[in-house]
Order: sequence, then C-alpha cells, then structure tokens
Amino acid sequence: FFPEMAASLWKNLLQTTKERILQQRGASLYIDAHGYEEELIKKKLQQFAGGSINLSKEDSGIGILTLNNPKLMNAFTGTMMLELQERVTELENWKDGKGLIIHGAGNTFCSGSDLNAVKAISNSQDGMNMCMFMQNTLTRLMRLPLISVALVQGKAVGGGAELTTACDFRLMTPGSEIRFVHKHMGLVPGWGGAARLVRIVGSGAALRLLSGAAGVDPARALHLGLSEEMLSSSDETGALEEARTWLSQYTEGPANVIRAVKKVVTAGRELPVEAALRTEKDVFGTVWGGPANLQALVRRQRHK
Amino acid sequence: FFPEMAASLWKNLLQTTKERILQQRGASLYIDAHGYEEELIKKKLQQFAGGSINLSKEDSGIGILTLNNPKLMNAFTGTMMLELQERVTELENWKDGKGLIIHGAGNTFCSGSDLNAVKAISNSQDGMNMCMFMQNTLTRLMRLPLISVALVQGKAVGGGAELTTACDFRLMTPGSEIRFVHKHMGLVPGWGGAARLVRIVGSGAALRLLSGAAGVDPARALHLGLSEEMLSSSDETGALEEARTWLSQYTEGPANVIRAVKKVVTAGRELPVEAALRTEKDVFGTVWGGPANLQALVRRQRHK
Amino acid sequence: FFPEMAASLWKNLLQTTKERILQQRGASLYIDAHGYEEELIKKKLQQFAGGSINLSKEDSGIGILTLNNPKLMNAFTGTMMLELQERVTELENWKDGKGLIIHGAGNTFCSGSDLNAVKAISNSQDGMNMCMFMQNTLTRLMRLPLISVALVQGKAVGGGAELTTACDFRLMTPGSEIRFVHKHMGLVPGWGGAARLVRIVGSGAALRLLSGAAGVDPARALHLGLSEEMLSSSDETGALEEARTWLSQYTEGPANVIRAVKKVVTAGRELPVEAALRTEKDVFGTVWGGPANLQALVRRQRHK
Repeated sequence: FFPEMAASLWKNLLQTTKERILQQRGASLYIDAHGYEEELIKKKLQQFAGGSINLSKEDSGIGILTLNNPKLMNAFTGTMMLELQERVTELENWKDGKGLIIHGAGNTFCSGSDLNAVKAISNSQDGMNMCMFMQNTLTRLMRLPLISVALVQGKAVGGGAELTTACDFRLMTPGSEIRFVHKHMGLVPGWGGAARLVRIVGSGAALRLLSGAAGVDPARALHLGLSEEMLSSSDETGALEEARTWLSQYTEGPANVIRAVKKVVTAGRELPVEAALRTEKDVFGTVWGGPANLQALVRRQRHK
Repeated sequence: FFPEMAASLWKNLLQTTKERILQQRGASLYIDAHGYEEELIKKKLQQFAGGSINLSKEDSGIGILTLNNPKLMNAFTGTMMLELQERVTELENWKDGKGLIIHGAGNTFCSGSDLNAVKAISNSQDGMNMCMFMQNTLTRLMRLPLISVALVQGKAVGGGAELTTACDFRLMTPGSEIRFVHKHMGLVPGWGGAARLVRIVGSGAALRLLSGAAGVDPARALHLGLSEEMLSSSDETGALEEARTWLSQYTEGPANVIRAVKKVVTAGRELPVEAALRTEKDVFGTVWGGPANLQALVRRQRHK
Repeated sequence: FFPEMAASLWKNLLQTTKERILQQRGASLYIDAHGYEEELIKKKLQQFAGGSINLSKEDSGIGILTLNNPKLMNAFTGTMMLELQERVTELENWKDGKGLIIHGAGNTFCSGSDLNAVKAISNSQDGMNMCMFMQNTLTRLMRLPLISVALVQGKAVGGGAELTTACDFRLMTPGSEIRFVHKHMGLVPGWGGAARLVRIVGSGAALRLLSGAAGVDPARALHLGLSEEMLSSSDETGALEEARTWLSQYTEGPANVIRAVKKVVTAGRELPVEAALRTEKDVFGTVWGGPANLQALVRRQRHK
C-alpha cells in the first residue's frame, strides 16, 4: 500500500467537485446507471403539463427566473420541472451573467409539487427518479457562478421552501412565510432541502424547522439566518425592484470578477479546507493580471 | 490509475457512514484491534461500581434516560459507563421511539467521571481505552434516529458537559451551568466533546469555552447557540414536564416520519454535500408512498 | 474491490492532516513539483525589500508578531513575506508558547501587498507562486498550537483582511475596519482568505463581504462573528495591553494543556467528525496522567 497512491487518489476525488466549480460544466449528481433513469422520468414528467418557468436576462447581468403557475400557487408540474432544467442550462451558458433572482408569479413564491403529478408517481420508483432529477437541477443551480436570491413573497412551502435553499440568499416581503411542511405530508425533503438547510442555519435549527414543520415569518427567518433582509414592498413590481437594488450592491463590477467571487465561496462551502485553498488559488489565477486587475493597478498608481 | 476506480472507492468510503445513518446498526467508531481492547476495559470498568442509568420508554415515543448517582452529582462510575452502552443499544432497537430526554437525578445533571475510577486508570493505556469506549457509546447516541434533548439542571461539568453535546438540543433550568472544566484538571475533552462542540457553536466559541474553562449560564448558552431555551421550572418534576412539552412539538407525528427527519439532518451534518444529498434521497424513499404520505394525499384531496 | 482496503486508504488520507495537527511538523500545502517552485519565488520576493516582521516571545507564553512597514501601512513587501515564513517556523519550534498576538506598527494593521511587488509579478506564473507561498505560510500559522489573535487597529485591507482570518480571533479598536477590497482591484482573495472566511462567518456572509467589498466596522464585525470584542483603547500601547489581557484569560495554565486545547479545536474544525474524534482521543492521551492532571487530582482529593 502506497501513501503516494493514496494522496493521488484523494486529489483525484476532490478534483471532480473542483472542476465542476471552476469550469461550470453542469455535471450532474446522478447520471444514468446507478438506478437513475433520466429519459424515463423525463417522459413521465412530460405527461403532467401546465405552467412555465420563464427566464429574462437583463443587461445589468441579473437574470430573473419566474415560476409561473399562479392558479396552483406556482406548484411544480412535470413540465415545469423539465423547463427548470433547461433554464439552468441556459444560465450555465450565460457568460455575462452575474446575479439571479428567483420569484413566483401572482404574489406568491411556490407551493412545491403539483398534487396531480405527485399522486401519479406515488407508488413507484418514479418518486425516486423525480427526486434525483430535481436534485441534479438544484445542485447545478446552487453552483452557478451567479449570486442568487430567492425573493419570497406569499408562501414558499414544501418543495418551494427547498428551492429557496438552493439560492445564496433569501429576501422576504412582509407577511411572507417559508415552511418546510413535509412532515404533515408524511414526508421529509427529497430535493436536497435538508442537506442545504443544515448548511444555512446549522443542524439544530434545521432539525427544529423540519420536525416542527412550522411556518417561518420574515423576522424569525432573519434571526435564524434563513433570510438576509425583510423587504418593505408587498406588491410584485415593488418587491422585485427592491430585490434588484439589494442584489446590485453585490453584482456591481466586471462579470468575470463577480463570477470568480462566487466560485471561491462555493469552493469554501463545499470542499475540505485544503482543497478549498487550492481551488481559491486556481480561481485567483483566472483574474490575476487580467484586464480589470491591470486597470485597477493603473488607477491606483495615478492616485499616488 | 483509473478515475472510475477512484469514484467507486470514494462512494464506498462514504457508504459506511451512510449505512450507519440509514440502518442504525450501532456500528462502533473503534473496534477491537487498532489498539482498542473492549473486553479488557469492560472488565476494568466493572470494578468501579455505583449508581445506575435508567431508561423509561413512554407511550408517547419519548424515552427518559436518568443518570442516577446523586451522592456524587451523577458522576459516571465504571458500571454506569457500561449501563449507558446497554441503554443506547436498547434505544437503537426501540422502533417506536421518536424522542429522548437525558437528565440527572437530584436536581443536577452530571459532574463527569467518578474520581475513584479516574485515579485507578490514570497511569495506563486504560485511560485511552475508557475514552474509546465512551466515544463509541456517545457517537451511537448522537446518531440515534430520535430527537434528543439534554435537560440541564444544576451542573453539567467536564464529561457531563461533553455528554450534553451528544444530544441534538440542550434546555437549561434557571441557575444551571454547563462547564468544560477540563483545563483545570490538566486535561482536554476525550469523550468527543471538543469535536461535537465545534459543530454546535463554531470553532471560535468552542476554543473560548475550552481554553477559558468558565461556566456558561443559561443566558450565555442561549446567545452562543449552546442551548435552545431557558426553562422556567427549577424543580425536577416541573423541569422534566417542561422539557417533555418542548420536545413534543417536534415528535408529534408518525414515528417513521420523525425518525426519517432526524436521519436526513444527521446526514446533512456529518457528510459532504453530495453524499448528504444522496442519503436524503434514500431516506425520502423510505417514506414516499408510505401510509402517512398516502393518508395526507387523501386528506388534501378532500379539502379541495 | 476490497472494503478493508478502502477503509485503510481513507484512514491513511486523513492521517496526514491529523499528523500535522498532532506533531506540528510544519508540512506545507504546496510542495515543490505540482507546478510550485518555492526556490524561484523566494528569489523573486527577495528583490522587493523593505519593512520587517518582528517577533517577541514573552515569558507569559504570548508571542507578539509585529508587521512593520508603517510608511506603506504595513503592506507586505517581498522580504516581509519571506520573514513571515521564518517567524512562523520559529513559532512552530517555540515549545513554551501558548498565545500569539499579530498587530501592525503605527496604529494600523496591514494594507495587503506592496504595489511595487505586485506590479512586477502581475504578468506571470509568479503571481500563482506568490499565492502558494503565502497560503503555505498562513496555513501553518492557522494550525499553530497557539491561541492566536489579530489585533486590528486602523485598517486591515485586502491581503491584510485575509491575514486576520488565519488567526483564531479578531479584536478591533474603535474606528478600525476590516475590508476585503479585492473586487475593486479586479481580484478575489488568493492567500486563502475566502476559504477561511466562509468557515468563520458562514458562506452567506462571506459572499456578501467579498462581492460587496464594503468595509466592516467593529460593531458590524461583532454582529457577523468576524470579531470577538471591541476594545476601548485607540493607541498602540493601550490596545496591545488590552489584547494581552483578553488573551491571557485563555492562555492561563500549563503550556502543554493550552496547546492540547488548540489542537482538539483545530481537529474539530478541519476534519470530518469521525477523524476529529480519533484525533481528540490521541491529544487527550498526551495530557492524561501527565503532571498537570496528577496535580489536579491531588488538589481535588485534599478538598474532599
């Protein structure tokens, strides 16, 4: 048994996550085989149609992703799950992107899965396949080199609450609520909401939120670190404008620099410290001596 | 060197922890060999008798574990260490269990190890074996699929403070104190208290608590996130009743669902994010389409 | 494929970090080969001279490390980077050391890298080598078995802000500021500041600090957990004396015990829980039955 081989193996294992962070390849958590059948679940999901996921890419480098199924409080139909995957691919390919706001149509965020789709796949392997499909999409969403915000108006319930945890930040409007209601449905999160919630609020608070299944209002969310800010607007346009302004504090600057910032933070939260340090060095290498850096050096020189 | 082999190896390595979480097999951190001699240390511990560890399993699915050695402030004798291991095994096999409250007899929590036992094993390999024995037990306690509470009355000192960190939550009565007094004994934690404390309060606060060795009162504990709540009762019966009521907010519901919630949170706190996501999906598979889930779907349908 | 081999491999992989923590060998993150050329970068750094890094080892077991280049707000010249490495080696070999205070000369902390050195290496592989050189030094600093404090007076900017994150604690004087200004220089942290900041304040707050590039005053730092305390003195001597008093709460006691405390906390923050538990047991073994422990047992006996 060779320590050199062990070291090289270890390096190789961490390499995968690192490359996903650095190169933004959209590699999936589950791939065909290992019991996951992507084509099969996509065909199933296609049968439960309704609503849409819309993406608008603004010149400022902020994308607006709208969950649009207001008659069901923006519950995810099968086709919406498919569209979310497509929009995430589009965002991965948007090289000028710096930020992302996810919100729901009709003054509410999202109530999880559409009941009809859920019932139809409740007795089978399909449930697990749906889970893996959504985990793949939400893991890619979480790792986008964009600073992402879930703008929570009205209710973010069940899978909707889970979706908010795939964003970097959560902003809540007055009277809104995040609720991990799964227990009352005889369930636990399956879209990755538990794994990500533990990382946001700590394992103690996560256990209370999941086992208590109580609604979290903006003040409580702020206290728990589940939300960053309580907005003042309650209407859709005003809240979106407020979220845009909040986010633009962090997206101001060259796209490649903002994207590099998100990458070093992603490495910091996903990797053991030594691997995170190595990734930080590699990301640093992508901006060091680059145009924004050289201009800043010139500016600084002039001020001397 | 094959990346496929590396990936498969990595998967296999994480598999062990995952299986412990999913199947609750009670696998130990230390097994015979690797310098650990369980039978030997058990024989040693048997010689230091006194006190008891009592378990009462209530119909509500809440277990009450009592540290009972009040004349020594519930210090652990050797036989109490052995009994704790037995009670944990019993709890692992209690399939209807949902919650656990650990408290001490005689209005105090626990003062650590009994001095007599400690002196007798202070000069030898026995100290390390005792450590490994207790780490095994407390790691299994931490991973129980039960929502666990340390009810701290009076003092939780040294090993007693360490024991509280093996629970999900800590509730403190007025005037009580948690104190990592180890430094004043020329020691550091050895029952896993340091590793777990870092995860509860962060490494900065943990370093201050361990290197300062100061007592933490309920208000300070609340501020640090070391405790969830200050109870109002000071007497044993009242405090236990309050703790039961607090815990029942989180244990209300079917046992398999509550246990699944604890499992996804355990995975979230112990595993890297990708492994935690995969475990969450597997735990989700144990409740999806199960009786509680199907009943909830029917209830929801009726309300339409 | 053999599970036993996997287990043994895993153990071996974690062993490296564990040994660094236990034996304080000063092993580096980057070694020659893997694209890192230490001798080459050392020669380059030698050319950018100025300032100094001074170390004073006090009888109390507290070391005072002074960044001394006040005409450039203590910016790091090349020779200061080299001297920092030497001082860290000296601290690794100081077996009586218990604590460390890092501060800057002339009432300010540190403004990062000296602009002249930066410009000269902006177009090459040297930038990456400088990064690796500093990451090596700061990782060794972070793992010193000493309780370390960054005493922030005036400004800690860019690389200066990154340096504060390699310490266990940050104390700030009135009017001082920590600022991750990198974005405005077209950069991200490269000395490990991002990886460590995520561990101190969480990934959400880290992302805001790095992408916003705003200055953090003492009150905000306290709120974020980026600082432990706001000092009352503004002058250099008074602030240093205050920091010494604050730190001595935690360094009081035998050196081997204080150092053991830091080691178990380092293990807790760097390693997965099972590896942290095993390391804690090994550190425990270094103090159990030792002189401080035996004296404490005798003292306790007398009080009976």
